[in-house]
Amino acid sequence: MKILITGAAGMIGSKLAARLAADGHVGGKPITSLTLSDVIAPSALGAARADVSDIAEPSQAARLIADRPDIIFHCAGVVSGEAESDLEKGYRVNLDGSRLLLDAIRREPGYCPRLVFTSSIAVFGPPFPERIADDFILAPLTSYGTAKAMTEQMLSDYTRRGFVDGVGLRLPTICIRPGKPNKAASGFFSSILREPLAGQEAVLPVSEDVRAWYASPRAAVGFLLHAATLDSAAIGVRRNLNMPGLSATVGEQIAALRRAAGEAAVRLIRHEPDPAIMRMVDSWPSAFDPARALALGFRADASFDEIIRAHRDDELATPGPSS
Amino acid sequence: MKILITGAAGMIGSKLAARLAADGHVGGKPITSLTLSDVIAPSALGAARADVSDIAEPSQAARLIADRPDIIFHCAGVVSGEAESDLEKGYRVNLDGSRLLLDAIRREPGYCPRLVFTSSIAVFGPPFPERIADDFILAPLTSYGTAKAMTEQMLSDYTRRGFVDGVGLRLPTICIRPGKPNKAASGFFSSILREPLAGQEAVLPVSEDVRAWYASPRAAVGFLLHAATLDSAAIGVRRNLNMPGLSATVGEQIAALRRAAGEAAVRLIRHEPDPAIMRMVDSWPSAFDPARALALGFRADASFDEIIRAHRDDELATPGPSS
Repeated sequence: MKILITGAAGMIGSKLAARLAADGHVGGKPITSLTLSDVIAPSALGAARADVSDIAEPSQAARLIADRPDIIFHCAGVVSGEAESDLEKGYRVNLDGSRLLLDAIRREPGYCPRLVFTSSIAVFGPPFPERIADDFILAPLTSYGTAKAMTEQMLSDYTRRGFVDGVGLRLPTICIRPGKPNKAASGFFSSILREPLAGQEAVLPVSEDVRAWYASPRAAVGFLLHAATLDSAAIGVRRNLNMPGLSATVGEQIAALRRAAGEAAVRLIRHEPDPAIMRMVDSWPSAFDPARALALGFRADASFDEIIRAHRDDELATPGPSS
Repeated sequence: MKILITGAAGMIGSKLAARLAADGHVGGKPITSLTLSDVIAPSALGAARADVSDIAEPSQAARLIADRPDIIFHCAGVVSGEAESDLEKGYRVNLDGSRLLLDAIRREPGYCPRLVFTSSIAVFGPPFPERIADDFILAPLTSYGTAKAMTEQMLSDYTRRGFVDGVGLRLPTICIRPGKPNKAASGFFSSILREPLAGQEAVLPVSEDVRAWYASPRAAVGFLLHAATLDSAAIGVRRNLNMPGLSATVGEQIAALRRAAGEAAVRLIRHEPDPAIMRMVDSWPSAFDPARALALGFRADASFDEIIRAHRDDELATPGPSS
């Protein structure tokens, strides 16, 4: 299997790359080539080939797919905070980059790769029902969510027309994100656990009753691999799926932190309400009924205790075999 | 009020232009300029200024809005059949043309016109509930519907960000379309009434139990004018609205034709099933619960008898004052 990952230097892309490199196969088939594309250099990884290029630059997409990868993981994107502060950059990367990729694939005669696209629950906006069903309206309230929703539409259309075998995954809020904070407004969901687990202070800009829909990086990589290998005929015409997740409040996150690392860790969280972040977070969905994804075999984390354990295993322990 | 209509040579655009030229005002305010833009020359109309240009050609949109129209009716578009047979043309006009217009508006400092966009119920795809509610998923099964759905998303985002005061109208199947058949696969819904009312034969490619969601051209023009003048603050953040319509079967259309023009007219309809059209029509929604639009004051036709009367008044009678 020839595999291409766009956004391979990003959080999800790099974790996926590491997992594929460690596994050496996908869906039981050996990986014969692994190309890691990003606008910044991805980490070196065994035999994987790094390709530093901008997917939103015309002609790059055609070059990237010239060797006809069997599976493309399209993870490249500008995060929510940056897409909001720099509208043109956000649309350029999140919409035009995706469209250039889809059009490059369309122009290759007889080529129809599996394309797994990382969409987001940011395609939804309030008012919300108690739990969001699979046929709920796409009505984003960020430019990030808008470009994701637009790309989803094109992915479905190009799949329907037989140019690509697309699967869009509306990822939950990823928690615990490893590494440093990025420009995503949702960053605090991770930092209030990550920093205290490492003995450092963190800032909580919202109240403890804020509820969100979470998946660990490990679960997200699992979604991507499952989407790459499942029988796509079972998906039907609606090619974009709400991923399963864990619905929890910030208070429940903190309770899990207390169980894992004690009261001293919890005391490292400083409450500093930020009205701008509170407004954004209020517009995010917090609970789903992801019936289609569950029926297709996607599986979420069971609890925040499990999410914290996975973070400790994957990020805080000495490097070991991928799990 | 300065008014710009794109797609002004099209069916809805030209009817809207004629109505505005006849009225001389909109929402009680006198019309000081009326620009009719289309890629083919719109009919000459009083003091209206014709502008023959391609909205999908970069720089045209900036030129079109240079005099800062107060209201823009964005009706330009490639119809469903053509967007399906010529993918690149469809996306170029229906998506890129709209985006160029939105971006030209965004780049004019301090300018925020009302923009009324003709979207379509083709943004929806099966499986459908019995009646489609206002929060039903956008899942089109045509490239036409896809580009409309994508434009809707951008219209909402640009409105949220304060660049434009956008209102998208998901128009029902327009019936009875005047004039000659176009490339819309939905053309027969009109021709099975229009041709027999004029003593000519028509072809029915689907069965009589096919149900659709209709609005007359007169009702559609009414929707556009209402959208141009209503208090847009009442719309909320979801700026695209399912328009009210008349849910009827082809059999009910034919019964209304019989009441209006007798059995001889009905006998002019030739049944010639066309599997390709039947498949497309099966993927179109047939009944809505357009609660938001009704609450905002949009009004549909009451019956097919009324639709036929409006057609006879507007198309078959000697020209008179606009109604």
